[in-house]
Amino acid sequence: MAFPNLSTILMPHLLLIIIFIISTASPPSLASRFSNFPLSKRAPRFLGKFSHQIKPLQQREYRYETRYFYQRLDHFSFSELPSFPQRYLINTEHWVGPDRLGPIFLYCGNEGDIEWFALNTGFVWDISPRFGAMVVFPEHRYYGESMPFGSRDVAYKNATTLSYLTAEQALADFAVLITDLKRNLSAEGCPVVLFGGSYGGMLAAWMRLKYPHIAIGALASSAPILQFEDIVPPETFYNIVSNDFKRESTSCFNTVKESWEALVSEGQKENGLVQLTKTFRLCRELNRTEELADWLDSAYSYLAMVDYPYPSAFMMPLPGHPIREVCKKIDGCPDGTSILERIFEGVSIYYNYSGNVDCFELDDDPHGLDGWNWQACTEMVMPMASSKDASMFPTYNFNYTSFKEECWKEFRVVPRPRWITTEFGGHDIKTVLEKFGSNIIFSNGLLDPWSGGSVLQNLSETVVALVTEEGAHHIDLRPSTPEDPDWLVEQRTTEIKLIEGWINGYNQKKKTTFNM
Amino acid sequence: MAFPNLSTILMPHLLLIIIFIISTASPPSLASRFSNFPLSKRAPRFLGKFSHQIKPLQQREYRYETRYFYQRLDHFSFSELPSFPQRYLINTEHWVGPDRLGPIFLYCGNEGDIEWFALNTGFVWDISPRFGAMVVFPEHRYYGESMPFGSRDVAYKNATTLSYLTAEQALADFAVLITDLKRNLSAEGCPVVLFGGSYGGMLAAWMRLKYPHIAIGALASSAPILQFEDIVPPETFYNIVSNDFKRESTSCFNTVKESWEALVSEGQKENGLVQLTKTFRLCRELNRTEELADWLDSAYSYLAMVDYPYPSAFMMPLPGHPIREVCKKIDGCPDGTSILERIFEGVSIYYNYSGNVDCFELDDDPHGLDGWNWQACTEMVMPMASSKDASMFPTYNFNYTSFKEECWKEFRVVPRPRWITTEFGGHDIKTVLEKFGSNIIFSNGLLDPWSGGSVLQNLSETVVALVTEEGAHHIDLRPSTPEDPDWLVEQRTTEIKLIEGWINGYNQKKKTTFNM
Repeated sequence: MAFPNLSTILMPHLLLIIIFIISTASPPSLASRFSNFPLSKRAPRFLGKFSHQIKPLQQREYRYETRYFYQRLDHFSFSELPSFPQRYLINTEHWVGPDRLGPIFLYCGNEGDIEWFALNTGFVWDISPRFGAMVVFPEHRYYGESMPFGSRDVAYKNATTLSYLTAEQALADFAVLITDLKRNLSAEGCPVVLFGGSYGGMLAAWMRLKYPHIAIGALASSAPILQFEDIVPPETFYNIVSNDFKRESTSCFNTVKESWEALVSEGQKENGLVQLTKTFRLCRELNRTEELADWLDSAYSYLAMVDYPYPSAFMMPLPGHPIREVCKKIDGCPDGTSILERIFEGVSIYYNYSGNVDCFELDDDPHGLDGWNWQACTEMVMPMASSKDASMFPTYNFNYTSFKEECWKEFRVVPRPRWITTEFGGHDIKTVLEKFGSNIIFSNGLLDPWSGGSVLQNLSETVVALVTEEGAHHIDLRPSTPEDPDWLVEQRTTEIKLIEGWINGYNQKKKTTFNM
Repeated sequence: MAFPNLSTILMPHLLLIIIFIISTASPPSLASRFSNFPLSKRAPRFLGKFSHQIKPLQQREYRYETRYFYQRLDHFSFSELPSFPQRYLINTEHWVGPDRLGPIFLYCGNEGDIEWFALNTGFVWDISPRFGAMVVFPEHRYYGESMPFGSRDVAYKNATTLSYLTAEQALADFAVLITDLKRNLSAEGCPVVLFGGSYGGMLAAWMRLKYPHIAIGALASSAPILQFEDIVPPETFYNIVSNDFKRESTSCFNTVKESWEALVSEGQKENGLVQLTKTFRLCRELNRTEELADWLDSAYSYLAMVDYPYPSAFMMPLPGHPIREVCKKIDGCPDGTSILERIFEGVSIYYNYSGNVDCFELDDDPHGLDGWNWQACTEMVMPMASSKDASMFPTYNFNYTSFKEECWKEFRVVPRPRWITTEFGGHDIKTVLEKFGSNIIFSNGLLDPWSGGSVLQNLSETVVALVTEEGAHHIDLRPSTPEDPDWLVEQRTTEIKLIEGWINGYNQKKKTTFNM
């Protein structure tokens, strides 16, 4: 069988996935040839493990002031709950001020430390001077320093303390913060433009829909707002990852596809785990084959997300076109190299591009519960499956019942799989947004496995999709580099033009109203 | 001074106001000539007192089934809280079903028993057969039978139990209910049209804005969504009430305007309270002049709301053009009749049109806290003031500090006066809705004092204002009667046409998508 763990089923990582696995029973639908594949307890953690430590290759100097704003824990009730400090980064040095209606660029902080997002969202910093814009990066509640209840330990203690970690509360945080900020600066008239990538992109799009009076437009990059319920097929994500490999090399795709069975066979041999430990240069002896399988699965999925055309260090230091490099390794081994040895050579590009790693830790993250796990087990229920033919991953069907059980075991919480579409919509999105939304850019690169759950068609004149064949996960939000391919330069130029259009339209309107 | 009680300051009744007063200090801004006017402890209760008992004059037979749907207490957190049964009334006998995309007419239940609203919203019942529409009247949480915590007593116990009584939670209730209902009937494709009057109209408009994927349009009748913060002048409400009197008779207006001082003078005399008790035929001896003032104030405000052109019994049994009748009484007294005697003759039209009342109870409502009081003290902070010249009420300025103190005393809750505009917008509504909203009718009658805080101009081609000079509080939602004036018949015809347009547009779109 496959990886009936939450990370596979569900949410390999929005940006930075990571799911804690405590699966104990194989879903009955698993392909029988993998029925002996033991279940992993845990998938590799993404953000906790790597993201904080990694600095961009070209270290930019983004100057900002760090401030804190006290937020209600529950915006939608009057329960007496302790408020918490929301951290936000702010830069006003290019802002032309309220008299000239200087725009406010608001990045919708997602599931991680806001400084890390600020560092990796160079686009906003790059373009703010030409717009005379203020830049604000508020942190998402329950991440980074924006902890309710005084500390991460208490905030993450249990379902009761975690219960206010929801997207709607985060949006309300942004709405309250920016309204207050504008009032204090007498900048009520200044237009706010939203930016966000991945889950942050979803927040940006939803915020534009739910708070049109607060922001005039949103650039929602790689925002899989349709990855819920049955809106897109659950196989979408893994099919795209698989295609990313196949397009580089069919033999590479086939090798990966065959490797899972090889892995199981090897693990079942006498001393098989010892042998696997050796082959994959693990620091500690492998306990269960599926831990290794998770480690590999993660690498492929993340590689697809960050399959950028130039060297980058968003999650790991990587060469340009990293999947190409991985496949070169896998395909380029001398004849007679075993499947598993080939695989190891391949993923070493991901896990050890620097060449400094002596041995690999499959699970070196000491932290316990993770915020995104909670979100995935409550609102962000994104069904994931792996198809028999199109996917290079083991076949797997989404099974909501097991999913629910896992969440109960982990958090003592019952997911609400239909809530997101009830609150934000999703079904029949074209009809809804055509008449209703305006000024949203859904930008996507088709290499990004999340693109399949995003909006890839223009929905109206002002709700537009910018799709790049060769783009990966919110590459447009990254800082510009000398290696940017033409299509990326063009994409950003279009985005800038559209944003200028929103702002000009707003200013025009303001003037007309003022002169009336 | 005036009536520095919450009902005057704030929210004389959205539909059915009622505020509990525990004011102890005169706001410093009060007009000095009334500075001796003692403060009332309590304003008359509206819904509790009259609404339930009164049946419409022409008793219609509206058939419906009563059902209950279990709702989360807090939709926006995952706190473990008890769910509660939301009552809803449903009629499917005219519904043409899912295959023919039969519309669903959803009335957004407001602050009271839903059966009472169903009875007083004949328009929805009247038009549903021609649309082949299902009719659903969900009750607003914390009203009628839709009580959290098992009983009204527990639900209304304190700020903790009341804390989930908010407009956003009520909207989410509607969204979840209708989504579930549609799914169970395989009616996901059926268009939902929202209706609502007064606070229910605000909910309908907000729901169309926040949940455009759930409802295709909204008829928001007498919905004062702009009666917040500084969006409209705080004097608006009382100025309109006053104008309603002035248009019938300037001398009537003047008599009322002069009566407050007469009331104070009389009350300060020896045996003054006894004399007032006699003049106003009170059942029990008057304790404080301001109780009587509140009683009068309420009558005038409610009269303005229900100043319908035909006999009605929305709140009290009344003749057509009731203000005209009141003024006839006030003006028609023989020469030499005192101001207070004239006033008494006038308000008797309101309080005793049936002629059956022997004596008047200023406060015969035994209930304690009221849901609307809570809402007015938390989210629905609507500043109210009374101007020196244009108003026939005592001069009064809104003082947020005293208001806040009252709310703290009554509920131990701190209001959030800016929250509604943060969550739903309100400032610069034209700019926001022009590009963003669609398919909303804001209908208003200019006699209605709430019309001043509503939308009175077309905001776009599809966000339109229907304004009638002679209309009062959501008269268009009332059942049609043979006495309906032409302008009302025309108004309803326009509404029907617009709703038909929404539905046809939706069906057209559906077909196009289906054929694609």
